Amino acid sequence: MTYCLAAKIDDGLVFCSDSRTNAGPDQVSTYGKMHRFKEFEDRSVVLLSAGNLATTQAVLTAIDRDIKGGSEENIGGFQYFSEIAEYIGRLSVDTQQKYAAAGETAGFTASASFIVGGQIRGEEPQIYMIYPEGNFITASNTRPYLQIGETKYGKPVLERIIRPETSAENALRCALVSMDSTIHSNATVGPPVELLFYRNDQLNTETGYYYFKEGDPYLTALSRAWGEKIAGAFETLPPLSIDQQ
Amino acid sequence: MTYCLAAKIDDGLVFCSDSRTNAGPDQVSTYGKMHRFKEFEDRSVVLLSAGNLATTQAVLTAIDRDIKGGSEENIGGFQYFSEIAEYIGRLSVDTQQKYAAAGETAGFTASASFIVGGQIRGEEPQIYMIYPEGNFITASNTRPYLQIGETKYGKPVLERIIRPETSAENALRCALVSMDSTIHSNATVGPPVELLFYRNDQLNTETGYYYFKEGDPYLTALSRAWGEKIAGAFETLPPLSIDQQ
Repeated sequence: MTYCLAAKIDDGLVFCSDSRTNAGPDQVSTYGKMHRFKEFEDRSVVLLSAGNLATTQAVLTAIDRDIKGGSEENIGGFQYFSEIAEYIGRLSVDTQQKYAAAGETAGFTASASFIVGGQIRGEEPQIYMIYPEGNFITASNTRPYLQIGETKYGKPVLERIIRPETSAENALRCALVSMDSTIHSNATVGPPVELLFYRNDQLNTETGYYYFKEGDPYLTALSRAWGEKIAGAFETLPPLSIDQQ
Repeated sequence: MTYCLAAKIDDGLVFCSDSRTNAGPDQVSTYGKMHRFKEFEDRSVVLLSAGNLATTQAVLTAIDRDIKGGSEENIGGFQYFSEIAEYIGRLSVDTQQKYAAAGETAGFTASASFIVGGQIRGEEPQIYMIYPEGNFITASNTRPYLQIGETKYGKPVLERIIRPETSAENALRCALVSMDSTIHSNATVGPPVELLFYRNDQLNTETGYYYFKEGDPYLTALSRAWGEKIAGAFETLPPLSIDQQ
């Protein structure tokens, strides 16, 4: 499993991903799930991936091949960001279908999900979640975040905090708290954690990038502070008056 | 789906359950999942159920029938609380097997999970989670809570707050916050919410029982206060220094 999320706030885009993959308890490895395409002057594209590692790697290889080969369809050439989402969905479905027949008999699934986000000059920054079937959705003002992989543990805090007007700093810390909750609950999600803030119209993904290894002092301090604040919050919640009933 | 949880703290036991059942979006109903057996002077037994409603109702019927019929095996007769867990597991498996053959062809599952807790005079209070296969586990000091049903959304806050030394009031409010997070994230978990605090050696389940209907003022106030405290907590987390990198 894995856990990735993206959020679209007024100031820009937030991306966060873990780095653990597993195919059974004996086959645990570390692979980054955040891919920044830095080749282009007029656009920034960030891809987060979850699901079958062979599928996501094949999709990445295809994307790179199309860029380097100057293919008619490549993420540097599309006019609209939504076309990039559609293109990645198509690559994903093609890859999955290639192995589907073998997979069915072996009881494995080649399915994969993606979040793609970024900005093409002249357009608003955008984020899309791409389903294993290749279709995709975007975020909305009432639900300005998207998640893939092991999404449930980390959802309540996003639901409480992420709004379009949330500050970049709070949105980034919220992404890390959501990731931290998931890492603590599911052994197949783990560090290093990658975090990226893309400020509107920045058109590069070099600044605002953070990489947290296991035991990183900031991540440890954040997790501890969060735990203390949560515990403190309980002391001042409305009293339930236990002995009243 | 449904969501139920129980916790064992130093002062006693906490139980919490929702009341929504569904079999598809058109078949949503309200059924309590908390069952208190009040017939006995020397013991208190509380059962929480999740999964196939027909299975859980059949198990409850069988339990009642065994009590009223004075069966050799009934929850009023066992010497040890763990025998009650074993007995309920047996009833559950028997019921599921009865419908398993029909279920396989219809693509449905009769599977169900239970949490049973309480106390027999002379024993410590105890909680057990009973798997669909009939086997069961108890809570531990390092993980003093059990969950069944839609467990993931509500887990991080339990993980942060529930310890053996947590006060009864905080443990009860934590159970409600965990339930509230789940209700907000999953449409198949919903009010009324039942909450019970069983104080050690109390040997009855009349006091400490709370019933919260949809829109209950306390539940609404708790949810709002929690949201505000979470949002406030973010303002004082360790700064990430966005512009440093």
